[in-house]
Amino acid sequence: MTAPSKPNPADLACPVPIQSHATIQLAHGGGGRLSERLIAEVFLPAFRNPALAALHDGALIDLGGQRLAFSTDSYVVRPLFFPGGDIGSLAVHGTVNDLAMCGARPLALSAGFILEEGFPMHDLGRIVESMRAAAAEAEVSIVTGDTKVVDRGKGDGVYLNTAGIGLVPAEIEIDPRRAAPGDMVLVSGTLADHGIAILSVREGLEFETALESDSAPLGGLVAAILEAGGRDVHVLRDPTRGGVASTLNEIASAARVGVRLEEMALPVREAVRGACELLGFDPLYVANEGKCLAVVAPGVADRVLEAMRAHRYGRDAAVIGQIVAEPPGRVVLRSSVGSLRIVDLLTGEQLPRIC
Amino acid sequence: MTAPSKPNPADLACPVPIQSHATIQLAHGGGGRLSERLIAEVFLPAFRNPALAALHDGALIDLGGQRLAFSTDSYVVRPLFFPGGDIGSLAVHGTVNDLAMCGARPLALSAGFILEEGFPMHDLGRIVESMRAAAAEAEVSIVTGDTKVVDRGKGDGVYLNTAGIGLVPAEIEIDPRRAAPGDMVLVSGTLADHGIAILSVREGLEFETALESDSAPLGGLVAAILEAGGRDVHVLRDPTRGGVASTLNEIASAARVGVRLEEMALPVREAVRGACELLGFDPLYVANEGKCLAVVAPGVADRVLEAMRAHRYGRDAAVIGQIVAEPPGRVVLRSSVGSLRIVDLLTGEQLPRIC
Repeated sequence: MTAPSKPNPADLACPVPIQSHATIQLAHGGGGRLSERLIAEVFLPAFRNPALAALHDGALIDLGGQRLAFSTDSYVVRPLFFPGGDIGSLAVHGTVNDLAMCGARPLALSAGFILEEGFPMHDLGRIVESMRAAAAEAEVSIVTGDTKVVDRGKGDGVYLNTAGIGLVPAEIEIDPRRAAPGDMVLVSGTLADHGIAILSVREGLEFETALESDSAPLGGLVAAILEAGGRDVHVLRDPTRGGVASTLNEIASAARVGVRLEEMALPVREAVRGACELLGFDPLYVANEGKCLAVVAPGVADRVLEAMRAHRYGRDAAVIGQIVAEPPGRVVLRSSVGSLRIVDLLTGEQLPRIC
Repeated sequence: MTAPSKPNPADLACPVPIQSHATIQLAHGGGGRLSERLIAEVFLPAFRNPALAALHDGALIDLGGQRLAFSTDSYVVRPLFFPGGDIGSLAVHGTVNDLAMCGARPLALSAGFILEEGFPMHDLGRIVESMRAAAAEAEVSIVTGDTKVVDRGKGDGVYLNTAGIGLVPAEIEIDPRRAAPGDMVLVSGTLADHGIAILSVREGLEFETALESDSAPLGGLVAAILEAGGRDVHVLRDPTRGGVASTLNEIASAARVGVRLEEMALPVREAVRGACELLGFDPLYVANEGKCLAVVAPGVADRVLEAMRAHRYGRDAAVIGQIVAEPPGRVVLRSSVGSLRIVDLLTGEQLPRIC
């Protein structure tokens, strides 16, 4: 018996319609075009409100004069333990970083565990200890939580959700819509380390140099950036799923500006570049978990770069491009030989379950 | 080949040790003794902090004079759609209610989706619409979210996490440790409706009367309770997983008091009582998703009861027992014939994946 074949939305030419008979594809969680459309066509129309519409890494809520940042992420990374971290440290870093990208000082986290029946208690203990250590480094408390257990075969060991709250200092105004022509685009370090580290374990690849995830808490780095640049820091984002390419596309789209990237300026570790070439990945699209993109007014770019480089998580920081007026909503890369190419959102899924 | 048989912690006599070779059991998510021990032995030692140690439905955080309540729950209910609700409305009600049980007025929710590859987009749309409607009734906004997709066979359609924040009015002090001998124990309506409704669909049972989940947002009911009882409302809790029995055990344990329940006073719908007898369930242990337990000073009990009964979600409210000094940490039920029995925490799992 053959079922009538249905079109796979991930295979259709852009724009990709979410049809009523469609089903969820891995790419709906990939941070690319299908993620964008799922948000635009399913979530935003239902949950319409100004905080959500800002499409920031977190929502800002006014609490009688104080601005509270509120953010959440679920984690389904595979494998659970990888070089440079595990699902526990990743879940703490990820949400702490989303708060930091709002300009907020992280205050508290929640933790929601979905455990599969039969999961070893010892491994849960390792994950919890790793969360403890990550929270201590990030100077944040895990104050509330929840545990659910699903039957064997209906989960994949552990899924983890963290939500977090933090306070945004009065003078700070971080908003993707503040990116303006002339602004400089900085990244706090090398690209693609997290995604390639995960992929190397998953595929059993070995390289001469160890490939480690860059998973790290960025609250301290962001505090240094804000001290150096103040209100002239316009946008902060951590380029996770979908990498620098997808994050810059979101900023370009939110601010209706263009982004011009310089290929020569992109910092990529030699071993990661080699792995990307071998496997056919573009480091611009591969996830980072300890990096920060900053869009700043040109007058403070040098000072912010210096502040980044002085921080342990920003040693390889670089200016990688500039905000331009045209074409709005587009990211364009100037290659080493001077040619230009459009860096678009991905339609399919490059690396599922990277975070 | 036979593997050496390992002891199943759920089968061991109380106290149940969490041994290094142990694995996660369904009962670790059931709200009974194994849940309690997992929290006490794995989570609390790692995440030690005063807010978490209070073991409330949510954490209270001081924000320069304002008290913020912060809570999270993940939802893995099966089936996703059931009489009286679905995973979407349940996830909104559950977290709104956890905030309300801290005495907080809910402000905002986050939503984290973990979707299984192949899940019908149409069903996701139904769930999202149901969340929208539930949030609108509860007067709360869903301000931030996240979507992850796991490969086919590694999920069960949809898992959903919501976290929420709310503000606690200055005069209110709800804390399980405030339960004091002489206080009255009230419940806002009939017991076990949610659990039995889920079970009836899951098992394909049919009863003469339709069994519906009681899933509902309790912010308004709690506001009415607090208006009637003020600071004399000592404890509020929603008896979800593990039912009224488990929740009262937690209160007894936190406050080092006893609880004396009157079996005759427990409100249970006829159809639910019948289903419980047929299936061998004790309604005291079955989950509710739209009910509130209130422990209040005796002087305000009548007024609070009246306020509950005047609210659409409290029409069947009743005084079901009293806080006593002895034996501390124990819940005792006086049956209709006058005999006493201890209502203990369950060691095993009665109804997995009820929420």
